[in-house]
Amino acid sequence: MFLMEGYHLVEEALKSDWKVHELIISEDIVQLPEWIKGENIYQLRSHVFEHICQTENPQGIAAVLETKWMKPVYGARNLLLLDRIQDPGNLGTIIRTADACGFDGIILGSGTVDVFNDKVIRSTQGSIFHIAIEQADLSEKMKELQKDGYSIWATALRNSQDYQQIKPTEKIALLLGNEGSGVQDTLLRSADEIARIPIYGKAESLNVSVAAGILMYHVKHIH
Amino acid sequence: MFLMEGYHLVEEALKSDWKVHELIISEDIVQLPEWIKGENIYQLRSHVFEHICQTENPQGIAAVLETKWMKPVYGARNLLLLDRIQDPGNLGTIIRTADACGFDGIILGSGTVDVFNDKVIRSTQGSIFHIAIEQADLSEKMKELQKDGYSIWATALRNSQDYQQIKPTEKIALLLGNEGSGVQDTLLRSADEIARIPIYGKAESLNVSVAAGILMYHVKHIH
Repeated sequence: MFLMEGYHLVEEALKSDWKVHELIISEDIVQLPEWIKGENIYQLRSHVFEHICQTENPQGIAAVLETKWMKPVYGARNLLLLDRIQDPGNLGTIIRTADACGFDGIILGSGTVDVFNDKVIRSTQGSIFHIAIEQADLSEKMKELQKDGYSIWATALRNSQDYQQIKPTEKIALLLGNEGSGVQDTLLRSADEIARIPIYGKAESLNVSVAAGILMYHVKHIH
Repeated sequence: MFLMEGYHLVEEALKSDWKVHELIISEDIVQLPEWIKGENIYQLRSHVFEHICQTENPQGIAAVLETKWMKPVYGARNLLLLDRIQDPGNLGTIIRTADACGFDGIILGSGTVDVFNDKVIRSTQGSIFHIAIEQADLSEKMKELQKDGYSIWATALRNSQDYQQIKPTEKIALLLGNEGSGVQDTLLRSADEIARIPIYGKAESLNVSVAAGILMYHVKHIH
């Protein structure tokens, strides 16, 4: 189970088909929104509520949910593979962008930050409920995807080509890696294409969630 | 003056033409890298060093710099205007992306988080030293830019068109706004184009630094 905080996320949770185990309300909240319903509603003293929340200024509403994994549909066109993303804000933002961009699913390799970490959940802004996410051994998953006709585009700064030059195929799986070290070598070697976002200025690299956004929208638009 | 922490940033600071007022080293650092030089080097007890740093696991090296504003060159092609960006991580990431994308400068409207905030500086990953950034009244600046031949593309979800449909012009200034409320209405009304990044899934919007990345690389590539 995991905790999520704030009106927007709790409302998304109640609209979703995820199991909401209990709602937790701070005594400060005098009037509950009408969409608050269910049997397991607990009211807490405000200092207790603040204690269980991770944000500095909690909104006074939280929910405990059962974790859930939705397996991506593999007949789909666009998948995102993530290798050891460490920063919760980055993972959450990437999930939000993948949802916005209409990607069909996300596959998290081992070493990736826990998707049910509260900062990940907050950064998804509710997209955790909208897109299929699964955990897998990326090396094996890549072989399966390639058999299934996917072209896998890994990202790297060296020995790579401008992403705009890569010939689109019917099914594309993007692979992005760790904030510091990128995609690990063993996975790079198994990829079909190595893509680079060109750097025109003096920055050494892009933030991984920005890079993911640029590449996902590119893939969406060439399809 | 402002403080920055960590090896990468301090090395970038010393390579730059910014005035480094003093270097601060924790007593834990036994061997200094060879690029550490200058007269004002202070060594601190490690608990004092940790006290002045904002990160949880400081690297033991910090610098105090004089703030500096570099005025963008207006003969240039691509500028970025920011209206009331609040999150330090977002502002820093946007500065990093603008540098990577070879934009000519960034103009910060009032109500934007302090660019010398330590989290902004860390998120720039050193790009603060590479790109011209100035503060200005956006409303007046937009008039100046329009007289100078810039087409100003503001972003909004409503009453907007897909950014890929907007006809490129010689000089483009992108305008992005606050995380919650977007670009303020008065500025939207003065813009030449209102651009939208299409949402294909169920997310309500994109993170502003991801949106900035997608739009800046688009503008760079149509030029």
